This record gives sequence, structure tokens and C-alpha cells, in this order.
Amino acid sequence: MLLISFIISIIALVFAGYLVFWIKKQNMGTSKMQEIYEAIKKGANAFLKRQYKTISIMAIVLGIVLFCIYAFSGKAIEGLQVSIAFLLGAFCSCLSGLVGMWISVRSNIRTASAAQTSFSKALTIALRAGAVSGITIVAMSLIGITGLYFIYSALGYTAVQIPMLLVGFGFGASLVALFAQLGGGIYTKAADVGADLVGKVEAGIPEDDPRNPAVIADLVGDNVGDCAGRGADLFESTAAENIGAMILGVALFPYLGINGIIFPLVIRGFGLLAAMVGVLSAKAKETDEPLKALNKGYFVTCGLVTVAFYFVAMHMLHNILFFFAGLVGIIASIVFVFVTQYYTEYKYRPVKDIANASLTGHATNIIAGLSVGFECTAATVVTIGAALLASFKLGDMTGFAHGGIYGTAVATMGMLSTAAYILAMDTFGPITDNAGGIAEMSGASKEVRERTDKLDAAGNTTKALTKGYAMGSAALAAFLLFSAFLTEAGIQIVDLAKVKVFVASLAGAMLIFFFSGITMRAVGKAAGKIVEEVRRQFKADPGLMAGTSKPDYATCVDITTKAALKEMVLPGVLAVAIPILIGVFMKAEALAGFIMVGTIAGILLATIMNNAGGAWDNAKKYIELGNLGGKGSEAHKAAVTGDTVGDPFKDTVGPSLHVLVKLLGTLSLALVALFI
Amino acid sequence: MLLISFIISIIALVFAGYLVFWIKKQNMGTSKMQEIYEAIKKGANAFLKRQYKTISIMAIVLGIVLFCIYAFSGKAIEGLQVSIAFLLGAFCSCLSGLVGMWISVRSNIRTASAAQTSFSKALTIALRAGAVSGITIVAMSLIGITGLYFIYSALGYTAVQIPMLLVGFGFGASLVALFAQLGGGIYTKAADVGADLVGKVEAGIPEDDPRNPAVIADLVGDNVGDCAGRGADLFESTAAENIGAMILGVALFPYLGINGIIFPLVIRGFGLLAAMVGVLSAKAKETDEPLKALNKGYFVTCGLVTVAFYFVAMHMLHNILFFFAGLVGIIASIVFVFVTQYYTEYKYRPVKDIANASLTGHATNIIAGLSVGFECTAATVVTIGAALLASFKLGDMTGFAHGGIYGTAVATMGMLSTAAYILAMDTFGPITDNAGGIAEMSGASKEVRERTDKLDAAGNTTKALTKGYAMGSAALAAFLLFSAFLTEAGIQIVDLAKVKVFVASLAGAMLIFFFSGITMRAVGKAAGKIVEEVRRQFKADPGLMAGTSKPDYATCVDITTKAALKEMVLPGVLAVAIPILIGVFMKAEALAGFIMVGTIAGILLATIMNNAGGAWDNAKKYIELGNLGGKGSEAHKAAVTGDTVGDPFKDTVGPSLHVLVKLLGTLSLALVALFI
Repeated sequence: MLLISFIISIIALVFAGYLVFWIKKQNMGTSKMQEIYEAIKKGANAFLKRQYKTISIMAIVLGIVLFCIYAFSGKAIEGLQVSIAFLLGAFCSCLSGLVGMWISVRSNIRTASAAQTSFSKALTIALRAGAVSGITIVAMSLIGITGLYFIYSALGYTAVQIPMLLVGFGFGASLVALFAQLGGGIYTKAADVGADLVGKVEAGIPEDDPRNPAVIADLVGDNVGDCAGRGADLFESTAAENIGAMILGVALFPYLGINGIIFPLVIRGFGLLAAMVGVLSAKAKETDEPLKALNKGYFVTCGLVTVAFYFVAMHMLHNILFFFAGLVGIIASIVFVFVTQYYTEYKYRPVKDIANASLTGHATNIIAGLSVGFECTAATVVTIGAALLASFKLGDMTGFAHGGIYGTAVATMGMLSTAAYILAMDTFGPITDNAGGIAEMSGASKEVRERTDKLDAAGNTTKALTKGYAMGSAALAAFLLFSAFLTEAGIQIVDLAKVKVFVASLAGAMLIFFFSGITMRAVGKAAGKIVEEVRRQFKADPGLMAGTSKPDYATCVDITTKAALKEMVLPGVLAVAIPILIGVFMKAEALAGFIMVGTIAGILLATIMNNAGGAWDNAKKYIELGNLGGKGSEAHKAAVTGDTVGDPFKDTVGPSLHVLVKLLGTLSLALVALFI
Repeated sequence: MLLISFIISIIALVFAGYLVFWIKKQNMGTSKMQEIYEAIKKGANAFLKRQYKTISIMAIVLGIVLFCIYAFSGKAIEGLQVSIAFLLGAFCSCLSGLVGMWISVRSNIRTASAAQTSFSKALTIALRAGAVSGITIVAMSLIGITGLYFIYSALGYTAVQIPMLLVGFGFGASLVALFAQLGGGIYTKAADVGADLVGKVEAGIPEDDPRNPAVIADLVGDNVGDCAGRGADLFESTAAENIGAMILGVALFPYLGINGIIFPLVIRGFGLLAAMVGVLSAKAKETDEPLKALNKGYFVTCGLVTVAFYFVAMHMLHNILFFFAGLVGIIASIVFVFVTQYYTEYKYRPVKDIANASLTGHATNIIAGLSVGFECTAATVVTIGAALLASFKLGDMTGFAHGGIYGTAVATMGMLSTAAYILAMDTFGPITDNAGGIAEMSGASKEVRERTDKLDAAGNTTKALTKGYAMGSAALAAFLLFSAFLTEAGIQIVDLAKVKVFVASLAGAMLIFFFSGITMRAVGKAAGKIVEEVRRQFKADPGLMAGTSKPDYATCVDITTKAALKEMVLPGVLAVAIPILIGVFMKAEALAGFIMVGTIAGILLATIMNNAGGAWDNAKKYIELGNLGGKGSEAHKAAVTGDTVGDPFKDTVGPSLHVLVKLLGTLSLALVALFI
């Protein structure tokens, strides 16, 4: 069965290669477009190169530390294996980011070019480019884990021992993902906020105007933050969740044998197959709403996955209850998509409330946005809670010891089985955003801009939806990971009534807020540097505003790169150091409380940040459509304030929290020897 | 010993009566001032009357429900006693609010009048008025509890049985406090935000300008929110903390006898005595900084309390370790004061950061303020964590079973022993704020305004400090209350690794955010109604802006009253209903998780809201002092936005969360029979 999964992954890579081939064949547009493309490519490459250098140093140091810890516990050989798995995980995570960035840079321009003639063609290019990233990442995580599984088998380890040896792979992936998401997230939002503050607010020029010296940095940001960062993030998710589920499968070895351990990998393979069909089936007519086409592909994927889930679960686990548990996960993922839509689309009450609040000023806009964010936690928690309780109950009904926890693992697998398609939709967002930017900067006609705007709006929605999905799956995955941690640490109980555990739990929730605070401050600081530089350029050369001379884009890109890399270090290091310190000094039970309550706080804060950010964005769009005074009115200015506050919420802090929540899990698993 | 405490309370009431007598003797100022005073008095009375009507109905219904629950469990007589205690607690809590409002309305005008001639006199009046409120409230809670203790003793209950019978008193107090704080908090901030939005922003008239129709509603708000609401809040705190500590004392009965149970009441009595000396010793010279005088009184109180603590602890508990535990609490309260100062005064980095961020616009001001709020959780959590761990360790070293938990109870007592003085400083804030408003509205001279401004600025600082203190003590008190709940529910362990407990914990954190979201929305909605009314009045009568005709203040007061009372119901009812539902359907262990994680989230969110709100307020003040462009600059406008967002943060949601956190504890204790 595992071989099937391995083969599907290889097929998926070939399929991704075909998509790349297809995309590369598309038209590259005007020379003006190509000039912008070159600038973006150069900036994005430069950032990734420097970022990966920093990350590599940290990963190697941590890899050595990891080996030493095992070696001092007298397990040098295992330590070597875990360290190698760690470095492999870190490498693959870097590679995922690179793939995401590589394909998005190359397809932005082709999407913009296609939009000159055909809306449908532009949509197909953007979605297929997203699919390259989604499918490659999921396939790579499968190949990495199944490959390691085969190697460890060949080295003589049993199926029961292997999952814990894989933990290093997950930890390496998480670590890189955290820094990639932090660095990329700070970069993209610092550039965005900085460009908007001077461009839109001070100089009064539109978004993506070529006169703005920070505009290229802004476009680079979409590629390194939303594409590279998110790529690493989702690679880490799929890897961590697979490993967590496999560890829980070990507990069911007496009932299910090796099948319980490898089931997560097999079902993930079939999910990959379903996503490929889904991507090919998503096609739009010229006059269609773009979301209709994307949704069609999503539902095809969901349908196929459900069928596959039934057969695989019956064949491998021999129990329909596990199929139902998986179904709970699939349904939960669909519910998350709808909840996010309700809170972030302007058709519904929440976004309208924010738009109306903009009429009375900046402050009421902010208050309304925050209250929408706070309120939406209820729907999220009810969904997560119901999914956990239902899948636990279903697993428990099988009568196996630890069956309940395995039920939640199967639900997580269900939820994540559509991950490749979701990731394709997610990457669709920044690609269309960039395509719009390229069209604007190259002076494309109004008709072309309308096409790219339509795609961009759809991309904003899919970005918000996938964030809701990512948060929901992170919640389930985190529960998996700490269940696995408890198993490994030999802890039966995490007693919150103990003062030590309570204090550690308090610290866990604190880490989430503290991390978010310094990350937001990092965005503010980096944006401040860009504002200074743009002001300097405008002042030094009056020809810039007149459009007679060309701004110095490269300096802005360079400043943003340096600032983002500098600012990502502190939150990243704290996020790794604090849980280790808690674990070393307060030991495993306290650390478990720390992780669990940290996870709870992280899930809620990420939900707030994602949805408030999305809602502010769309409240602004709603006003820009001509409602409540339209563009340029006082209400619009207030809405722009909300949108700007929402930017680091939804694109820096929120996604970093997804990663952080899972990093806590993989870190505690990988270093469990330190905490007992 | 208990009799001593009772007698001290009576002395305290006599002392408060003397202060009232002294205040009433002071000059009532010009006829113009008296006119404003009459309007404020009328508005505040009308609000409290209507609010208490609504609250009474809810309290009576809940009292009957409480009785029925006990009756159905076959404990009709105990049910009667608990219900009566509940209604008594609710009544005393209402009375506390009334006292706070009554004295503040009467002293505002006298402070304003005294400011015409003497700064030192004005300060003394405001502080002594605050002391009336602080001392009466603490004395009343002591008299209520010791009185009930005597009655239950006379009815034949033993010292071990009585604390649980008192739980109803605490629950009644919490319930009223929640609604009082919610209703008052929504009122005061809706009026404040509403008045500012139209007055300052749209019409361009200064704060407290008599031409603004909402200005009286704004002044009424200070009295019903900051004074009446906070009065009920702190009554509830002292009552709930005493009862929680007494229940924990029961567990130490084998070692300490009755002394362990009544120690909290005795030490509270001595704290009251110390506060009286502190209030009398706080006097300022004409040229002094007002904070210097207030701090002097605080340190006198702290010093006396420490001495008293040593003798009472040695005499009653015969163990110096408990004295040290109390000292931990006293030190923690001082640390909280300094941490709050660091994050909210413009001398330090955080507020300066916010002020600098205002230079680049509204959005960066908001991002900076939120990141300061998020960051300050670290200092708070470290302080709470260290205090809990240290006092637990000290208590544990006594060698008594449950000695550790009792150690944390003693630390809480230490922290709260200065409560009466802290409350006096807290009420000082709204009184000086109102005095400034009255001076402005009555057209006082610049010299007088300067005196009241100086007092107002000091009042803002003391308000922020006491919020930090209140949050810290709420955290310790909440830990007491749920330790007591575990004791009563017969639970040894709260196992977060159980899916049910984890889901309930997730729901607990969610309640905090959801509650905060709808409360903020309530402020926004109520403020919107005021904006409409003020706009209507300005439009209907152009003479208003010219100053030739008088605005219709009463309609604004009436609209705010109705809106605030309507909006307080939903968050209040949810806060009571959700924990009951969780407890009934998921039972005691899950409820314990719900409460603990809810408490953790509540502590952190309240800290964020209080400190971010205070920091935004002072960033605005820093700019108004002439820095970064001064009043009227773009930076100032951005800072006003931050201040307006911070208003509901620090004066509505933050304080309501203090109450909510303790309500969860008293509610679960009072209804424990339902959850087993």
C-alpha cells in the first residue's frame, strides 16, 4: 500500500512538471511587462537567497544540538538519524518555498499577458500555477516521509519504531516554515504598508503606480511572503500531521497492525490524485464568475476524496466507523470555508457593519473590525469542538484502546485530504494579485485591468478561505501532535489543577500574544524604514512624481530584505527558546499544559487575525464599489486604515501563528528526551 | 478575632461617614457649576434607577432558580440560605455602586470649586471622596460576610460548613457587578466616543464644550461607569476573594483550626485600618506633583499592612512561612503598579513608540498600540506566575496537606490588603475628570483649568495603575476560586489530555473573546445612536454652534441610558448561560477546564485591553504637550483615533473581563450541585 502512495507521489511530480511545461509555453507579454518581471524575479531571488542563508545556519546549529542531546542520553546512532531527518525536513521545507516562489514569479507575468485577450485563459494559468506549488509540496512531503520509512525499514527498524524517528523531519520542516513565514510575512506587509502609506496616503497616487519607488518591493513581497512562506508553511503542515497520525497509529498496532501506521500516508496519496482531477476540471467560461470555476474544482476534489476515503478505510482499517470519522473531517473543512465566507464577504452582516462604522471615522472602523474578529471565534470553536468530540466518539465506538484519539487522527486526515487543491487555490491569490500589479505598472488598458481585478477579488476570497481551512486543520493537527507527545513522554494526565501546570499554561497563552506583539512591531519597524526611503527618493528627485524619471526600485527591495531578515530573528528565536526552557525546567507535564493552552490561544488569535483582516479588506472593497460615499470619501479613508491594520493581521501574524502552533508540537516531540 | 474585624468595619463606616460630613461642608462653587451638577445628578440617578430595576429582576429570577436547584437535590433549607445570601450579596453590590456614584457626584463639584482657590484642597477632596467609596465598600463586604458568619453560627452550622453557605453571597455580588460594569461601561464609553466623534472630529469644538449636546451624558458616564460600575466590581472582588480563601482554609482545619478559615477576614480588617491612616497621610503642598502625595499614602498603607500581616499571621497561623507568602502578594501588587507605569506612561519606550507611529498615520498608531498591549502580557504573566509558584512553595514548606494552595490564598490576601486605598485612588480618577469637565463647562479661568488638568492627568495614571492591580488580584483570586471549586466538586485532577476537557477549555477561551467582541460592538452601536442625536440637534438648531441657544442635554442622557441598558443584556446573559450549559452537559471536570483556560485568556486579554488603552491615551497626551507636531497636527489626529479605540478597551471590556473571570469562579461554586 505504501508503495502505491509513493508511486502516486511520483506521478504527481510528473503531473506538476507537465503543468510547468504548459505554463512555460504561455505568452510572456509586452517588453514592458518583461522588464517588471525581471525586477520582481531579481528581488525575490535575492531575498530568498539571503533568507535561506540565515535559516540554514540556524538549522545546522539546531541539528548539531539535536544530535548532542541524543548522544548525551546514550543514543548516538538514533541521534544521528533524527538529526539527518531534521536537516532533510528543513531542506525540503526550503525547497517547497523555493518551488512556490519560482512558479509564481513565472506565472504572474503569463497571467497578466493572458488577461490581455482572455479571462478564462488567465484564470487557468493562475490556478494551474497554484496547483504546481500545491501538488509538488504535498508530493514532496509524501516522498520524504515514505522514503525515510523505506530507509529505516531497510536499516532494520520495525514499523512501530519508525514514526518517532521521523519526528526530526517534522521538526526541521516546522522550524524552516516558521522563519520562512515570519521573514516573508514581515517582508510582504512591511513593503505593502510602507508603499501604501507614502504612495496612497501622502502622495495621493494609486496602488501599484510605477512612480512609487516601493512598488516593486510590494510585488516581490507577494511572491516571497504569500507564495514562498505559505509553501513552507503547508509543507510543514502536511509533514507534521502525517507523522503525528502515524505515532498515534502505533498505539493501535495490536488491532490494526502496520495498516494503522501507514494509513495516513496512503490516504494522503489518494487525496493527491483527487486534487489533480480537481485542478483539471476547474475551467471557466469568459463570462463566468471566477469563484464558480474554483469551487467546482474544490467540490470535485471533495467528492473523489470521500469515495477514496471509504474504500481505503474499509480496506485498511476494516471499520466503517473510521470512514465516518474521516467524513467528519471533510465536513468540518467545508464548514470552515463557509464560516470564513460569512465573516469576510461583503454580502453578509459583519463586513457591512465594518463598512457602516467607517462612516463615523477611523476609530469606529477599528472597533467594529476587532469585534467581528472576536465574535467569529465562536463559530470556529464550535466547529473544532464538534469535530473533535464526534470523531473521538466514533473512534471510541470501535472498542479499540486509544481508538478515540485515533478517530480524531482519521478526522484530521479527512480534513487534510484536499490540502493540495486548497493550496492551489491559496497560491492563486498572490499570483492574480501580482498579475494585476504587472498589468497596472505596464500601463495595460482598462479592459485588461477589469479582468485582472476580477481575478484579484476572487484571489482575495480564496486566500481568506484557505486561511480558515489552514487554521482549522492546524487545530486538529496540534491536538494530534500533543496526543503523540503525551504518548512518547509517558504521561497519562495533564493536571491543570497543579500550580506548576497552571503557571506553564498561562505562559503558553502568553507566548502567543507576546510573539504576535513583537511580530507586529517588526512589521511596523520595517515599514517605517521603507517610508523613510520612499520619502527620501521623492524629495531628492521631483521628476519622480512627474513621471519623467525612474525611481530606484532596487534600493527599496534591498532595504526591505535587510529589515525583514533582521526582524524575523527575535520572534523566531523566542518561539523556539521559550518552550524548550519551560520543558527543561518545568518538565513534561507542565510543557504539555504550555503547549495545549498555547495552542488554544493560538487558534483563537489566528482566527481573529485572519478574519478581522479579511473583513477589513472587503469592507474597503465594498466602499470602493461606490457604497457609502465610495472612493475618496471620509468613510473610504477610514476603511483604508482598517485595511492597513488588517494587513499584518492576516498576512504576517495569523499565518505565523499557524506554524507556531504546530512547531510547539513537533519541537516537544523531537526533544522529548530533554523533558522527562 | 472575628469580632475585631467586625468592629474595625464599623469604625471604618463611621470614618467614611466623617469624610462624607467633611466633604459636604466644602464649598459648592458658582451657580453655573451647580446647574451642571444638578444635570449630572439627575442623569446619573435616572440611569442607576433603571439599571438597578433591570438587574433586580434578573437577580430575583436567578435567586429562585438557585433555590429550586438546591430544593430538587433535596437540600431545601440550605437552598433557602444560599438564595438569601445570594440576594444579600446582590443587594450589597448594588449598594456599593450607589455609594460610589452618590459620593462622586457630590464631590466632583466641590473639587472643581476648591480648584478655584487651592490645588491642595482640591486634591484632598477628590482623594477623600474616593476613600469614602473604597472604605465603605471593603467594610460592607466584611460586615456582610462576618454578619452572615455569625448568623450561620447561631443557626448551629460549624466553622467548616459555613464558607460554602457564603458562596451565594459572592455569586450575587459577582452577578450584579457584571451587569453594573457592563451597563456602566457601555454607557460611559458610548457617551464619550459619541461626544468626541461629533464634537471634536466633526464640529471641531473642544472636549467638554457646553455646546455639545452629549457633554452631560459624557460626565454622567464617568459617574455611572467608573464610579458605580467599579464600586460594584471591587465589592465583588473583595467578597469573592474572602470566600474563596475561607473555603481553602477549611482544608487546613486539622492544622490551623478555625483560625485558617477566618484569617482572611481578620487580615482584611487590619488592611482597612491601614488604608484609613494612608488616606489621612496623603496631603500635597500647593506646588507638589499630585502623584507624589498619592504615592505617599500608598506606601504608608503598604508599610502598615506588612507590619499587621506579620503579627496577625504569627498570632493566628503560627508560621512565619505564611507571613512570607503574604509578603509575596504585597510585593506582587507593587510590581504590578510599576509594570503598568512602564507600559502606560509617556516617559518610557512603549508610549513613545505609539506616539512616533502616529507620525505615519492612523493605521500605524493602531498597530503600535496593539503590539504594546500584546507585549505587556509577558511582564504580567511572569509576575503572576512567580507569585503563584513562590507562595505555593512557601505554603507547601509548612508541611500541611493542602498547605501550598493555602499559601497562594495568603498571598492573595496580602495583595488585596491594600484594596481600600487602591480603590480610593481609582475613584480619584473619575472625580477629577468630572471636576475638570465642570470647570470647563462653567467657563472657569485658565488657572483653574490648569489645576484641574494636573489633577486629571494624575487621575488617569491612578486609574491605569489600579487596573493593573485589579487584574493581578483577579488572577490570583480566580485561582483561589477554582481551587475551591475543585475541593467542593470533589475533583482531584483536571486532565487537559481528555478530549472533553480540551474542548471545554477551548470554549472557555472562546467565551472571553466572544464576550469582548459583543461588548465592543455594543459600545459601537450605542455610540452610533448618540452620534445621530447630536447631529440631529446641531442640524435642527444652528444657534447651538453659535452658543446662542442651549442644547437638549436630557435627550442625549436618555438615549444613552436606554441604549446602554439594552446592550448590556446579551453579553451578560451569555456570560452566565454558557458556563452553566457547559457544566450541566459536560460536568465538573470539563467545567473546571473551561474556567481555568477562560481565566487565563481573560487575564491576558484584560491586561492587553487595559494597557493598550492607557498607552494610547497617554500617547495622545504626549503629542498634546507639543511633541511631534502637537495639537491639531496629523499625528495628533492619528493619536486621537488610538485613544478612541482604547476607550472601550480600558473602560468597558477590560474591567468587565475582571468581573467575568471571577464570576466564572463564584458561579461554578454556587451551582456546584448541578455539575457533579
